[in-house]
Amino acid sequence: MKVIVKKTPEYGGLVLEDREIPIAGDNQVIIKTKKAAICGTDLHIYSWNSWAQKTIRTPQIIGHEFVGEIAEVGKNVTNAKVGQLVSGEGHLFCGACRHCMTGVQHLCPRTKGIGVNTDGVFAEYFAFPARNLWHCDEKIPLNVLSILDPLGNATHTARAFDVLGKDVIVTGAGPIGLMSVPILRRAGARNIVVTDINPKRLEMASQLGATATVDVSRQKITEVMATIPSMVEGFDVGLEMSGSAAAFNDMVDVMANGGKIAILGFLPPDMSIEWDKMVFKSLTFKGIYGREVFDTWYQMTALLQSGLAAEVEKIITHEFKYTDFNQAFELMRSGESGKIILDWS
Amino acid sequence: MKVIVKKTPEYGGLVLEDREIPIAGDNQVIIKTKKAAICGTDLHIYSWNSWAQKTIRTPQIIGHEFVGEIAEVGKNVTNAKVGQLVSGEGHLFCGACRHCMTGVQHLCPRTKGIGVNTDGVFAEYFAFPARNLWHCDEKIPLNVLSILDPLGNATHTARAFDVLGKDVIVTGAGPIGLMSVPILRRAGARNIVVTDINPKRLEMASQLGATATVDVSRQKITEVMATIPSMVEGFDVGLEMSGSAAAFNDMVDVMANGGKIAILGFLPPDMSIEWDKMVFKSLTFKGIYGREVFDTWYQMTALLQSGLAAEVEKIITHEFKYTDFNQAFELMRSGESGKIILDWS
Amino acid sequence: MKVIVKKTPEYGGLVLEDREIPIAGDNQVIIKTKKAAICGTDLHIYSWNSWAQKTIRTPQIIGHEFVGEIAEVGKNVTNAKVGQLVSGEGHLFCGACRHCMTGVQHLCPRTKGIGVNTDGVFAEYFAFPARNLWHCDEKIPLNVLSILDPLGNATHTARAFDVLGKDVIVTGAGPIGLMSVPILRRAGARNIVVTDINPKRLEMASQLGATATVDVSRQKITEVMATIPSMVEGFDVGLEMSGSAAAFNDMVDVMANGGKIAILGFLPPDMSIEWDKMVFKSLTFKGIYGREVFDTWYQMTALLQSGLAAEVEKIITHEFKYTDFNQAFELMRSGESGKIILDWS
Amino acid sequence: MKVIVKKTPEYGGLVLEDREIPIAGDNQVIIKTKKAAICGTDLHIYSWNSWAQKTIRTPQIIGHEFVGEIAEVGKNVTNAKVGQLVSGEGHLFCGACRHCMTGVQHLCPRTKGIGVNTDGVFAEYFAFPARNLWHCDEKIPLNVLSILDPLGNATHTARAFDVLGKDVIVTGAGPIGLMSVPILRRAGARNIVVTDINPKRLEMASQLGATATVDVSRQKITEVMATIPSMVEGFDVGLEMSGSAAAFNDMVDVMANGGKIAILGFLPPDMSIEWDKMVFKSLTFKGIYGREVFDTWYQMTALLQSGLAAEVEKIITHEFKYTDFNQAFELMRSGESGKIILDWS
Repeated sequence: MKVIVKKTPEYGGLVLEDREIPIAGDNQVIIKTKKAAICGTDLHIYSWNSWAQKTIRTPQIIGHEFVGEIAEVGKNVTNAKVGQLVSGEGHLFCGACRHCMTGVQHLCPRTKGIGVNTDGVFAEYFAFPARNLWHCDEKIPLNVLSILDPLGNATHTARAFDVLGKDVIVTGAGPIGLMSVPILRRAGARNIVVTDINPKRLEMASQLGATATVDVSRQKITEVMATIPSMVEGFDVGLEMSGSAAAFNDMVDVMANGGKIAILGFLPPDMSIEWDKMVFKSLTFKGIYGREVFDTWYQMTALLQSGLAAEVEKIITHEFKYTDFNQAFELMRSGESGKIILDWS
Repeated sequence: MKVIVKKTPEYGGLVLEDREIPIAGDNQVIIKTKKAAICGTDLHIYSWNSWAQKTIRTPQIIGHEFVGEIAEVGKNVTNAKVGQLVSGEGHLFCGACRHCMTGVQHLCPRTKGIGVNTDGVFAEYFAFPARNLWHCDEKIPLNVLSILDPLGNATHTARAFDVLGKDVIVTGAGPIGLMSVPILRRAGARNIVVTDINPKRLEMASQLGATATVDVSRQKITEVMATIPSMVEGFDVGLEMSGSAAAFNDMVDVMANGGKIAILGFLPPDMSIEWDKMVFKSLTFKGIYGREVFDTWYQMTALLQSGLAAEVEKIITHEFKYTDFNQAFELMRSGESGKIILDWS
Repeated sequence: MKVIVKKTPEYGGLVLEDREIPIAGDNQVIIKTKKAAICGTDLHIYSWNSWAQKTIRTPQIIGHEFVGEIAEVGKNVTNAKVGQLVSGEGHLFCGACRHCMTGVQHLCPRTKGIGVNTDGVFAEYFAFPARNLWHCDEKIPLNVLSILDPLGNATHTARAFDVLGKDVIVTGAGPIGLMSVPILRRAGARNIVVTDINPKRLEMASQLGATATVDVSRQKITEVMATIPSMVEGFDVGLEMSGSAAAFNDMVDVMANGGKIAILGFLPPDMSIEWDKMVFKSLTFKGIYGREVFDTWYQMTALLQSGLAAEVEKIITHEFKYTDFNQAFELMRSGESGKIILDWS
Repeated sequence: MKVIVKKTPEYGGLVLEDREIPIAGDNQVIIKTKKAAICGTDLHIYSWNSWAQKTIRTPQIIGHEFVGEIAEVGKNVTNAKVGQLVSGEGHLFCGACRHCMTGVQHLCPRTKGIGVNTDGVFAEYFAFPARNLWHCDEKIPLNVLSILDPLGNATHTARAFDVLGKDVIVTGAGPIGLMSVPILRRAGARNIVVTDINPKRLEMASQLGATATVDVSRQKITEVMATIPSMVEGFDVGLEMSGSAAAFNDMVDVMANGGKIAILGFLPPDMSIEWDKMVFKSLTFKGIYGREVFDTWYQMTALLQSGLAAEVEKIITHEFKYTDFNQAFELMRSGESGKIILDWS
């Protein structure tokens, strides 16, 4: 079978290689990949940035966003049959710590990432723990099913706080920020304001249901707020999806007292904020990691079944045969794309 | 009547003056002060630091921690009778904003502080809005009733997150940090670890029920954690009461994944933290301001009725006749005291 | 001015009378009525049923659902100006009990109902406590603003539990049951199934966004559930709006384990249920009374501003000049109407 | 090895038999029993009541409350080693349904009970699924560890609602009702009132920390409430542990508006209540089943480590060698005991 692998630390980029098809261990299944999507993490490995150099042990098959079909069922697996359509939680949690034993496996301190710490899904077949499987609703388009991982990040972040009837600001209109917009809309947010400095992304945010967008390179958020009659006291909820210190500090300024911010973006380690403002305003900050296992998966599936799928499809802009992965990664590096899918069928 | 007043910006310190006894306006009562306690805020005004110079308009009667007796009842007041023992919420909220109209008056953006923005309680008599009154249980000692304001800060912070069966760290063993220890104990915390650099305060924390204390000038928190057999994965809840950037960053390091930190202390505005750690650990930070009106008042009263009163009394170290206020302020400035009470009876 | 009054216990029905226009007391306003709607409670008084005979002291001006204009502002009122468009909370809570002092005034045990225990709003002018005022968004249609009281019941019930991505059953498609459908839809419910025995009302439920309806006189709920592919384990949330013991017990049967039921309907006092089923399924029942003051008012206003207003308008089927009140009450008694408005302008 | 078995439907009582020691399957362990406790369920089987006749398929090894030692570790088990001290969750959940996949396995609709639907723990050795294991703190007495199952019921019920500073009523002072008293105390309840008709049990409730007790055969609850100065508006939280319709209806009467009742007892299926009272008071009822897996286990362990163990020991009144099981069951049937332990070591 073919796999996409980061071969050696010296080599720039990724290579296509032949490997043996894996055999299912106990409590495992083998999945035949149908579609896999490229994540920012994959791009970091492709680009071999400092994070990748520090984290990845070569040779490493990469990739973790996928939808596929059960090809083999290992011993003692009771929740899978050959032929079933599946995706799965790519964080391989330990199963034995307090967090795993109390249903919050996304908090497991010993978690490993498939495609980062163990061989990934950019492969025709791959082994996967049965307890991490997610059974897919076949009515949802395959392309959408291949990006449940980042859609799960968006859902986890957008649902961190109740938004029904609330005013919400989203800083950063990358793919996950964009996905959060229709989720917030479906969760009943009143006003959704999205900030970024890329006009195309902001245009997409509007199409996905943002009440207003702010190009912060040209406008102040408060100017845009003033144009929304129902906004009175600042934002109730914020979603940090930008990784930008300026964006975060601007958001703190426009939050209402008692406001709540969910942070998914990687903020700069040297970022300072006006802490007295945070305290006087009684703000809450909540760090978001991964997806709740499997609460988030059920939630996003229910939303997809209720109409979200058509909206999420708009964020997928390109699809390539997996053999054209170099072209796909270069496009992704250009910043001129939404989500990019590799077809492995 | 006598009042303690910050006279003019030029004058160093406070003076005792004569004033007319106030008359109750509509929806107001007049309170005859029995006991009043000195807050750090009062010390800032006494010391006339930069915050005070920026905030206080002289002449200003100061003070906001009190217990007294209803001396006069204004028109349309239905919740007070002459002679009743009362304290009250010193944040004078607007009553008309969304926060006030939904029962979270501590989030009112137009709140004013008695003794800071309006004349205070260091006076034989003072006018007070009837809706801010708290009726006191006469079985609770007067000295304790005079410090319900800071005890409310401690209660609000300690109750920000569920601590039953949890491991809790408190950074800072000043009066409010100390008050939080028996509250946490009564709320069922398993282990309570208190950090500070003042051995006397840490000794007091132990007496009030801390499982362990850490003098961070001499020891690492992790060293102390290692001595507590039931601690496995770090702290579940943290209370920031120190205002110290080092203490806060140390706390972030020893939190368990999913941990929650309530922040009451004034952290330095230029403080940076490792934000990726905050996000990867899925930590929550919650800024705490004032007291929930009147949820916190009911909660702390129930705790005082259940035995907390005797513990809180230990944190009150001195009492002066109000005429000796200069001596009281100088003692407070020395850092060699717990809470100090002024007797106005 | 004209008022509609229940004159004496002997007299069947209501009469139109002349009264003096009231004068605003302290902390009160006088409201000039624009529109008022007829509630089931008003019909009970009109019909003079056993509840009414037990509860109402004649003479009594009735009515409590209204929108109007501030005509006079009493002394010490800071939140109102002549000419403002207002509605208001018709439960006149005491303001001094624990519930009132902690922001849950709908739980006040000493509450009085306007139009039931005190003179009501079926009058050209009426006095109203300033603290019960709700300022209306003038962009929302007047007819909708006149039924914020029952819309608030629907909102309070529909928001009792999180419904995002959940399957919800509503028993009873009367006006409040119908209002709950678009609220649930906007709160992100996946499937909404409505039960009743009136085909017209069920047809209206479908128009308002129900996934499916069940005429329980002809069909079983489980038959309809079987036609919804995404339903697997029963309903997550139920709203009891029928007052029917049969409907309630049927609902208990089709709830998923861990399901939650909000109860607004008046269930028969002799109703028994299979309590072991309730416990084995770990169900939650929550009684709902009135509206959260003013949380519910903010929430429903945000929903109305987001598009709910157009949906709620469909539930208003008739409007009469107030002088034609007898015709309106007779129509209401026939059961052939949705909400009926009286025009007082 | 020896086991206690319900042999045939005809035979009254239980018999001691010889069986082969079981061998660990994949994902299983074999546990050598140290102590096992008798549950009301075991007594039902011993007495062969109608529930038992309907539920139990003979021959059936009974028992589900235990502490033991790992004797053998099956294939693919990563969380157990021979010699470890363990107890475990006796509800054998399916692992594949929505509830199991979202961390609320106690809601699994396909759960089976060990000792009820599959062979139990009244045996020298028994097979147990590794994922149901609970590792015990060896500092906690063995007798206490043998009753973690019912202590978990008590903890789950007592923690259903926040009780810090609240007034709580417990109906029923059987073993689980009694266990709830010190849990409520450690969770910070202000007043705990326990009702029953057995003076000995009420005496024990007082020893365990109840503020007051009510023998409802002689006294009214309201009379006792009147003797507690801090009680003003009725109970905030109720725990139903009696299975008595009269007790439940009395409790509904004395709840404060907005009160919350957790129901563990098996209430009679024909019990009716005044539903309008439930709704007008905005009460919440929550059915409680089993234990949260493993949230409740962590919570009760933390409480045991904080001092609860000594209190729980008082509820264990007798211990027998397992060969004397008939004597133990007869004592239990007499109602003259607390918890009874069988020693299997």
